[in-house]
Amino acid sequence: MPRVRVPVPMRWSDLDAYGHVNNAAMLTLLEEARIATFWSDGGSAAGTKVLTAGPTATSFTLVARQEIEYLAPLDYSQEPVAVDLWIGRIGGASLEVCYELRSPAGTLCAKAATSIVMVEAASGRPRRLTEDERTALESLLEDPIEFRRR
Amino acid sequence: MPRVRVPVPMRWSDLDAYGHVNNAAMLTLLEEARIATFWSDGGSAAGTKVLTAGPTATSFTLVARQEIEYLAPLDYSQEPVAVDLWIGRIGGASLEVCYELRSPAGTLCAKAATSIVMVEAASGRPRRLTEDERTALESLLEDPIEFRRR
Amino acid sequence: MPRVRVPVPMRWSDLDAYGHVNNAAMLTLLEEARIATFWSDGGSAAGTKVLTAGPTATSFTLVARQEIEYLAPLDYSQEPVAVDLWIGRIGGASLEVCYELRSPAGTLCAKAATSIVMVEAASGRPRRLTEDERTALESLLEDPIEFRRR
Amino acid sequence: MPRVRVPVPMRWSDLDAYGHVNNAAMLTLLEEARIATFWSDGGSAAGTKVLTAGPTATSFTLVARQEIEYLAPLDYSQEPVAVDLWIGRIGGASLEVCYELRSPAGTLCAKAATSIVMVEAASGRPRRLTEDERTALESLLEDPIEFRRR
Repeated sequence: MPRVRVPVPMRWSDLDAYGHVNNAAMLTLLEEARIATFWSDGGSAAGTKVLTAGPTATSFTLVARQEIEYLAPLDYSQEPVAVDLWIGRIGGASLEVCYELRSPAGTLCAKAATSIVMVEAASGRPRRLTEDERTALESLLEDPIEFRRR
Repeated sequence: MPRVRVPVPMRWSDLDAYGHVNNAAMLTLLEEARIATFWSDGGSAAGTKVLTAGPTATSFTLVARQEIEYLAPLDYSQEPVAVDLWIGRIGGASLEVCYELRSPAGTLCAKAATSIVMVEAASGRPRRLTEDERTALESLLEDPIEFRRR
Repeated sequence: MPRVRVPVPMRWSDLDAYGHVNNAAMLTLLEEARIATFWSDGGSAAGTKVLTAGPTATSFTLVARQEIEYLAPLDYSQEPVAVDLWIGRIGGASLEVCYELRSPAGTLCAKAATSIVMVEAASGRPRRLTEDERTALESLLEDPIEFRRR
Repeated sequence: MPRVRVPVPMRWSDLDAYGHVNNAAMLTLLEEARIATFWSDGGSAAGTKVLTAGPTATSFTLVARQEIEYLAPLDYSQEPVAVDLWIGRIGGASLEVCYELRSPAGTLCAKAATSIVMVEAASGRPRRLTEDERTALESLLEDPIEFRRR
């Protein structure tokens, strides 16, 4: 299975007064896993870190759609959560990132998918994935996530 | 159309470095619209504010699933966004909240749905909606949202 | 006393697992009170809303220093907190904003001060307050806050 | 100098539309450094991790006061910031945590201090530091931070 596992630290302030990680904060944890996997950080692109991003990039990644199933509450821990991440679909100018998020103890807490569109910063319009981007993304291609409750 | 329109203030810190409201912060705006509509705040329940909630309640609302489509970037404004909110489905122990979020200028920025399960605080198990809850929720019942990109 | 009182809504996600508004979130509430008071929102400046701001402004306000005393825990409420806000000091290129934050029930929960520097966006350097800015700020000038625990 | 250096990851959503880490988010980074240093995480206490904490603990740490000087804007990076952390003062029931926060490139971006009070969960009242807590904290005792702009 061509997935990567990304450790993502929780923060104390991710919890709300129910004592669990808040539903919106869960998407922030996934965002950090996505950035760690795909964004090239200034230097040369390497492995899957092929998506140019950040405020000064010539193109950026737009989140077009998200779907998330919360399967178990996530308690605070100083240990990071484990996000298994893969690509569920590659389109002309878009891709779908799939995730399973597990607590430090190994409980599956959430399944999610994010649709990303590549956008040219100057025009604000979608642009096609380059061959290099496509090749890198294909190295993580797997079946898309199946949601139970749709 | 039995919808309510809830004004929700943005915050400057909801924006990320792209200059738009961050994708996860958008769910926080929807959470505030949901709470304003359904949570009884200490005093007696009234209208649609029938869901007991908060850390001291005997039952609470668990977010089981969310789906959101981002249709236009949301810029900062000191004016609140307008969230149109309705109920798309009522189950035995659960409900689906549907939303359309518009910028202060009236642009449709996001469509979303949240599946909520009623949970008994003591046992942590789902509990059936009461008749009062059901009656109040039915006053906002409408067709569920249709997502484009599924 | 030349103060303004600004209502600022809490959010459910401002709370952490202790069931109170998190210490850092408290500064976000103050930021919203500050913006509501001083930032001109696109249109013409009026009253105290004289500080140009936002990502497209030709100058912006930089937070140089903050001090905050937490006097009582702030519980969640759907009612907004009340932030009393005034100017404690006006310098050549800087100002000090002072605050008292009260719970919806009227409990004094925090006293705080923020030092702001006016910065020219193009150069990134401090710039002097204009006469218009100075006049508007002076309308809220009062003694600076006295902190107990220094 | 008895300091510890704690790496703390930034998050993309810590930035605001100015493209820098938001002033309140900076305190969240410091909170994470403080927790990593002092909170015992379930298991046995070790080294400086002597402060019981979290929602189920019999006592907890209350933030009573914070002071922070922002010395340089903090840009986004996938590399963590470095927080140098020490104890500036130990009282009967309280302590002062001091910090210097540096960007991944080594720029000093903030100096800060947090006053913490030990509180008994049952009564909500301050309690004296234990001998074990005191001994551990003394291992990090150094001169308190000197702020420039007071």
